[in-house]
Amino acid sequence: MKALVYHGPGDKAWETVPDPAIRDDTDAIVRVEATTICGTDLHILRGDTPEVAAGRVLGHEAVGTVTAVGSGVKTLAVGDRVLVSCVSACGRCRFCREGRFGQCLGGGGWILGYMIDGTQAESVRVPFADTSTYRLPQGTTDEEILMLADILPTGYEVGVLNGKVSPGDAVAVVGSGPIGLSAIIGAKMYSPSFVVAIDLADARLEAAKTFGADLTVNNGRQDAVAFVKGLTDGLGVDVAIEAVGVPASFELCTELVRPGGRVANVGVHGKPATLHLESLWIRDVTITTGLVDTFSTPTLLRLVASHQIDAGRFVTHHFALDEMEAAYDTFARAAETGAVKVVIAR
Amino acid sequence: MKALVYHGPGDKAWETVPDPAIRDDTDAIVRVEATTICGTDLHILRGDTPEVAAGRVLGHEAVGTVTAVGSGVKTLAVGDRVLVSCVSACGRCRFCREGRFGQCLGGGGWILGYMIDGTQAESVRVPFADTSTYRLPQGTTDEEILMLADILPTGYEVGVLNGKVSPGDAVAVVGSGPIGLSAIIGAKMYSPSFVVAIDLADARLEAAKTFGADLTVNNGRQDAVAFVKGLTDGLGVDVAIEAVGVPASFELCTELVRPGGRVANVGVHGKPATLHLESLWIRDVTITTGLVDTFSTPTLLRLVASHQIDAGRFVTHHFALDEMEAAYDTFARAAETGAVKVVIAR
Amino acid sequence: MKALVYHGPGDKAWETVPDPAIRDDTDAIVRVEATTICGTDLHILRGDTPEVAAGRVLGHEAVGTVTAVGSGVKTLAVGDRVLVSCVSACGRCRFCREGRFGQCLGGGGWILGYMIDGTQAESVRVPFADTSTYRLPQGTTDEEILMLADILPTGYEVGVLNGKVSPGDAVAVVGSGPIGLSAIIGAKMYSPSFVVAIDLADARLEAAKTFGADLTVNNGRQDAVAFVKGLTDGLGVDVAIEAVGVPASFELCTELVRPGGRVANVGVHGKPATLHLESLWIRDVTITTGLVDTFSTPTLLRLVASHQIDAGRFVTHHFALDEMEAAYDTFARAAETGAVKVVIAR
Amino acid sequence: MKALVYHGPGDKAWETVPDPAIRDDTDAIVRVEATTICGTDLHILRGDTPEVAAGRVLGHEAVGTVTAVGSGVKTLAVGDRVLVSCVSACGRCRFCREGRFGQCLGGGGWILGYMIDGTQAESVRVPFADTSTYRLPQGTTDEEILMLADILPTGYEVGVLNGKVSPGDAVAVVGSGPIGLSAIIGAKMYSPSFVVAIDLADARLEAAKTFGADLTVNNGRQDAVAFVKGLTDGLGVDVAIEAVGVPASFELCTELVRPGGRVANVGVHGKPATLHLESLWIRDVTITTGLVDTFSTPTLLRLVASHQIDAGRFVTHHFALDEMEAAYDTFARAAETGAVKVVIAR
Repeated sequence: MKALVYHGPGDKAWETVPDPAIRDDTDAIVRVEATTICGTDLHILRGDTPEVAAGRVLGHEAVGTVTAVGSGVKTLAVGDRVLVSCVSACGRCRFCREGRFGQCLGGGGWILGYMIDGTQAESVRVPFADTSTYRLPQGTTDEEILMLADILPTGYEVGVLNGKVSPGDAVAVVGSGPIGLSAIIGAKMYSPSFVVAIDLADARLEAAKTFGADLTVNNGRQDAVAFVKGLTDGLGVDVAIEAVGVPASFELCTELVRPGGRVANVGVHGKPATLHLESLWIRDVTITTGLVDTFSTPTLLRLVASHQIDAGRFVTHHFALDEMEAAYDTFARAAETGAVKVVIAR
Repeated sequence: MKALVYHGPGDKAWETVPDPAIRDDTDAIVRVEATTICGTDLHILRGDTPEVAAGRVLGHEAVGTVTAVGSGVKTLAVGDRVLVSCVSACGRCRFCREGRFGQCLGGGGWILGYMIDGTQAESVRVPFADTSTYRLPQGTTDEEILMLADILPTGYEVGVLNGKVSPGDAVAVVGSGPIGLSAIIGAKMYSPSFVVAIDLADARLEAAKTFGADLTVNNGRQDAVAFVKGLTDGLGVDVAIEAVGVPASFELCTELVRPGGRVANVGVHGKPATLHLESLWIRDVTITTGLVDTFSTPTLLRLVASHQIDAGRFVTHHFALDEMEAAYDTFARAAETGAVKVVIAR
Repeated sequence: MKALVYHGPGDKAWETVPDPAIRDDTDAIVRVEATTICGTDLHILRGDTPEVAAGRVLGHEAVGTVTAVGSGVKTLAVGDRVLVSCVSACGRCRFCREGRFGQCLGGGGWILGYMIDGTQAESVRVPFADTSTYRLPQGTTDEEILMLADILPTGYEVGVLNGKVSPGDAVAVVGSGPIGLSAIIGAKMYSPSFVVAIDLADARLEAAKTFGADLTVNNGRQDAVAFVKGLTDGLGVDVAIEAVGVPASFELCTELVRPGGRVANVGVHGKPATLHLESLWIRDVTITTGLVDTFSTPTLLRLVASHQIDAGRFVTHHFALDEMEAAYDTFARAAETGAVKVVIAR
Repeated sequence: MKALVYHGPGDKAWETVPDPAIRDDTDAIVRVEATTICGTDLHILRGDTPEVAAGRVLGHEAVGTVTAVGSGVKTLAVGDRVLVSCVSACGRCRFCREGRFGQCLGGGGWILGYMIDGTQAESVRVPFADTSTYRLPQGTTDEEILMLADILPTGYEVGVLNGKVSPGDAVAVVGSGPIGLSAIIGAKMYSPSFVVAIDLADARLEAAKTFGADLTVNNGRQDAVAFVKGLTDGLGVDVAIEAVGVPASFELCTELVRPGGRVANVGVHGKPATLHLESLWIRDVTITTGLVDTFSTPTLLRLVASHQIDAGRFVTHHFALDEMEAAYDTFARAAETGAVKVVIAR
């Protein structure tokens, strides 16, 4: 089959590789009908994650059809159409028992396109298939469900739920890339007083508005802390969600938040940040970090199926599978192309 | 009356000052029968808190008898014996309505011995007396109740409750001064699997054992992270409580904690710490900070009265009121004197 | 002044009574600019609450202007325009400290128009004025804020929050009177998969639709349990909210709910219900009851001010103050008149 | 092998049956080294559960050694010594994903000794073995671990955790049989102000004291409600735990509880109770029901291993496997024999 193979920093190719096969009895093989590219894939290609071996097929998001199942797979059958989640779950370990699938100790967690071959391919082996895939609900399209493979549960669980967004809250989302936009969608589901999107790029802020941000601040030009305090009796927001992954945006969140408020970090960080405990120790602040667990995926599927979430709006570009390299090019130059999520489908 | 007056960095005196008087109708005047000294008082004396004006009477902890009440005081009468809490609460503002009294926006919060004259005196004016004092329960001693003015609710609320200590948890408490010991007492109330006390001083670790620590580590001589991981299948503790107030101990807590665990900062910090988001972003960690709210004071009073908490064990030294300066000397040289809490009483 | 006076079962009159005056220093006198009638007022008139003394001025909901304050009132001044809440809070007792104002032990709770004279009058004495009234936010109308005196916090706190409505939930609301409609509005703020309104009257179900119900069932004609199970894989709803106050509707809720689900009782009951523990003991059901605490009133005020809640839609009829008896007549005959909430305003 | 077989109401025998064998690839066969009898077994024998087929091997609690595993079992091997839990969990369904294993939709839940053959036998087939058994921790005895097969997690999860017992709480436990005693042990782990045990039998109340009850009331002779109100400023307890399973004891719990308190039903009921909504609607009461999920079993294992819980104290009588019928006789006549838990071991 054809797949997008990582050959080391800066080097990838859409090329022929062996077809995947069942290795463990809980595996399924899924024919990929739609996949997409994540910011993390770009990190891997830059060489930021030396633990990724050359030869690895990238990608951790897919919608497709089951073409084979191991003898231990109980709830899936050949022909079933499924969402392949970015997180695999053994279903047996301490953390899986608690719904903390992203921290799976039994061989799961985020492994697809990272520790094992992934979804940017014509077909993919999915471990722990019973507990790592989801049937497609009626009345939905493949491309909207594809948004539930990673970004929607990530923004919702790690941003909105960790941040405990509640009705009437003032919410700031720092960063308006795909994850920030997911956090905006998720936050709006709780009827906050307002969501303010903060970013350095006006184009992304325009996108944030269409995703539901009530207010926007370009913090290259404007003092976001002063702006937010002006709206909140000088106190700051109830919840600040970090969706960039650099020290400055994290530190901004700790300044934006009111006494008793929450900072939910969603961004993937490569460097330490400074935590100003000399002012924060007295302010009753809660800071959370997290990898998505995807425990919310069934809930989000219901919300897409009932049209509470319009997941399709993330998709800005479409490609065929054998245009994978063009899709990467478009996604990597998002500032120019305006790409949010690109769908690569048969 | 006599009082301990701050005259600027390094300069204090037990001297005659005017008697306190009712200023606002919700004030009470309380004759101090027992008071104590807090690490924060030493900070003020070192000049770390330039916002404290020269001439200020120090102290924010007392047990005494009401000698006068303003016309707006409804639940207290002259002759009532009360605990004077370190936190005053207006009872009307947004944060007081939520039980977040430490963040009171109506003139309360931590003000005694800081923004207004305090309790290291023969008498003290207590603002918002109805909502800032507590009747002494039957069958308790003044000196055990005095421990509820600050350290016990601080260790319990900011350490144990923020850290969500639960039965079966592995708990690390970094720092075995009065606040760390309070956190140990509080943590043990939840039947953890074990509490490990971590400190640089063997004498404090010995004290920690008598307060209930199951295990101790001198992290000047021993690798605390390796020790803790050895006890927890390599994962780390469920809860790490910071009770020192320096960057190194906070950073240690973030290394001690397991994926999905909680770091509760209780220490008063003067400098920023480094937050290693490059490793923490993926580990589902919750970090909390906080000033005590004292919402738990009624609960703790019940637990002292029912002998679930032996609060008297904190008290290592006793002084008369006019030995206030000797009491300061003993408390300031705790490493030599073994002082945990000194009680200054009539 | 003129006021609506209860003279015993079935007997009321809009008549002249003495003007209210400050009795306690925390009282305020409020000139009533808008008031309304609650189902509970009808109960009192029917004689269901013998604890209400003849001579009592009824009503527990108002918007008006402060005309006098006691010496202990700190945050209100003559001329302030305020919402008078159905719940008064002493702000000092155990339950007020926990935000459980409805259970106030210090003389508050639901007292207006019940234990003391109420708001269906030209003027009203409001005890504990600092902690029992709310400033009107900018950009709102009196009549929409009036809906926050009772029904909106009741539906939200006792129905939606007690029921822990969450995104994606299936929610049933039994009863589509004013409280049921409030519960529907509140539930929709959490983006459920659907809200199904259940009632015996088609007209009320039509109203439920305009308030946001996704589905309706007339359970006089249709099997509500079967309908709901058909939508939920045979399991039942996540949350069932009882908003009628009769045994049959409570018992229906316990049949509608899925294993692990919640039943939130909001209705005012006069008779016991049967609890089918022989089937419920194994089903992990949570049942809650409650009187409104109004802790959510500030949140709801923000949501009305930010147009997340359209509170004005409850108002079906308008009357002048001296048309109070006509207003009662219209409200009492709601089935004929279609009254939801009637506003009586100057 | 030999097993205790149910032959219809009142008819059982310890007799020869075929050895169990692997049916599904996730099964294990466990050689029973210790088992016990539950009150539910007596219910079955009385014919209260007509869904139990004649020929069924009874029993849902065991400790033993794995003698065979299906090909889909990943974490267990022949020779492993395990606790067999009363609840089996498929690990894949909606409820198992949420840790609500008792409500498993995938073929698990409470099935052993009920829907399939159970543990009162020389050997037992355990379905979903990976997610339904637990390795024995070091330094524990079989008979103390056996208490974690059902009663300890039941008292803890359904009584203590559902009831949200917290430090300082006043707690009433109605019924001092094995489940009530488990609830007392669990409640004491949270440092309540006091636990009052209420029962009709003095002998059981004596047992309650040795399990940690601070106070006892024989409600055949004494008014339990008056007693409890006398201890709680007239309010009632924070948490009332029902551990009998008859309407009167449930109704008593609803009278014992304070406004804002919780009633946790643990008892297995055969008849409806009366819920006095005419008084409860206004009292902010939370009522919970539940079957044990055993999500707490790993926590309880740690607490037994660290000697926080002395589980062995439940065991009053010992029998050999072929004395099974004598063990039943002793357990069934608990009032005379003083049996709490009987252990039947090789």
